[in-house]
Amino acid sequence: MEFHIILVEPKYAGNAGSVARVMKNFGFRKLTLVSPSFSLNDEDCIKYAMHAYDIIENARIVDSFDEIAKEMDYLVGTSSIESKDDKHHLRKAFTARKFAQEIYKLEGKIGIAFGREDYGLLNEEIKKCDLLVRIPSSEEYPSLNLSHAVCIVLYELFVSKYKPVEIALADGKEKEKLYEFFDRLLDEINYPEFKKENTKILFRRVIGRAMLSKWEYHSLMGVFKKAIQSLKKT
Amino acid sequence: MEFHIILVEPKYAGNAGSVARVMKNFGFRKLTLVSPSFSLNDEDCIKYAMHAYDIIENARIVDSFDEIAKEMDYLVGTSSIESKDDKHHLRKAFTARKFAQEIYKLEGKIGIAFGREDYGLLNEEIKKCDLLVRIPSSEEYPSLNLSHAVCIVLYELFVSKYKPVEIALADGKEKEKLYEFFDRLLDEINYPEFKKENTKILFRRVIGRAMLSKWEYHSLMGVFKKAIQSLKKT
Repeated sequence: MEFHIILVEPKYAGNAGSVARVMKNFGFRKLTLVSPSFSLNDEDCIKYAMHAYDIIENARIVDSFDEIAKEMDYLVGTSSIESKDDKHHLRKAFTARKFAQEIYKLEGKIGIAFGREDYGLLNEEIKKCDLLVRIPSSEEYPSLNLSHAVCIVLYELFVSKYKPVEIALADGKEKEKLYEFFDRLLDEINYPEFKKENTKILFRRVIGRAMLSKWEYHSLMGVFKKAIQSLKKT
Repeated sequence: MEFHIILVEPKYAGNAGSVARVMKNFGFRKLTLVSPSFSLNDEDCIKYAMHAYDIIENARIVDSFDEIAKEMDYLVGTSSIESKDDKHHLRKAFTARKFAQEIYKLEGKIGIAFGREDYGLLNEEIKKCDLLVRIPSSEEYPSLNLSHAVCIVLYELFVSKYKPVEIALADGKEKEKLYEFFDRLLDEINYPEFKKENTKILFRRVIGRAMLSKWEYHSLMGVFKKAIQSLKKT
């Protein structure tokens, strides 16, 4: 499976540079521009691409949307506006998240097309797409900057595959041990009997929500142990 | 609940404009800039803000990170790099998505700070944050453009469903007080000096993530006060 990011008639070189950068940020490589209004040597393009200039260097320029559309096995259009009327199925769409969850089931060349800075994709272009992806945004000002639209779609694709480095969390036994030492601390400081039960429950809730890592568990245990020892000496 | 987007020492006016635009795209209003290298009248700022120039007009400029940090009830730092080592809790973080799922439980002023284009947030700034939010990105080129980083965090906040919980949470001042008493407890138990700083930061982070209610705050303060008193008697 191979993703192709397609910018349709982009006007500003800086946007192409920004798109290249965010593509590399999320591990995408293949960029195609349909009749851009600038050259890829434009200094804004270089400036905004930063360390992703290799993507610009390897980018392809084509004359028409159809030319690249034909090469794709699956073509996706994007939009930040969705019709609220079910009848206008032309504009009905998956959200970016749903798209990212579903797309990896496919194989082949997947083209994701982003429209012009001002007009987006034309209806005749959208008709040629197998799927329309919508980026949710505020009704007051729904129109995203081009590179922000690309950013969100690629981010969703990235995180749907990415398995975050899981922090090792304290397990049930460890937390029980921590609660036990907290209870002992309450005893050592002669915490009022009538409040004890509630305070114990409260401590469990706080720790429960805190998502304690193993390392944090050991550190807090160290504090409680030392506090209890110090109190015992008295 | 009120979100404040904080840009720390941004260098490029175009980025501030892009940030304003994406804020309006996702329904956010309050922007603060800490010592920007440009004026808000800069033409790039105006050009990139597009129809969100009202956000720039109402933006606030402050001289130091501390000035705005103090006003927030909950301060969130952002980064695109995560330590893989559990022990570096200074850099331990929620993903943007997890953050967006959890944050609506809070009340008050939530500040979300984004660092410099080149260096991000400094460690001393991150230490002052209640929580660190990480934006997953490719290992090859993890460094996102500033407005792209803002875009992803605000997008996640926008799409995550608002789940109101009516519990009154401990505010910034109360949490400071709790941290102060924790620090005093470490002193009273002669907690090893070389571990102190890390343990203090760890405690801050645990409490930051726990989203402490006012009631829980008062109860934990009661425990610490009593522990300290009991130790002092010895």
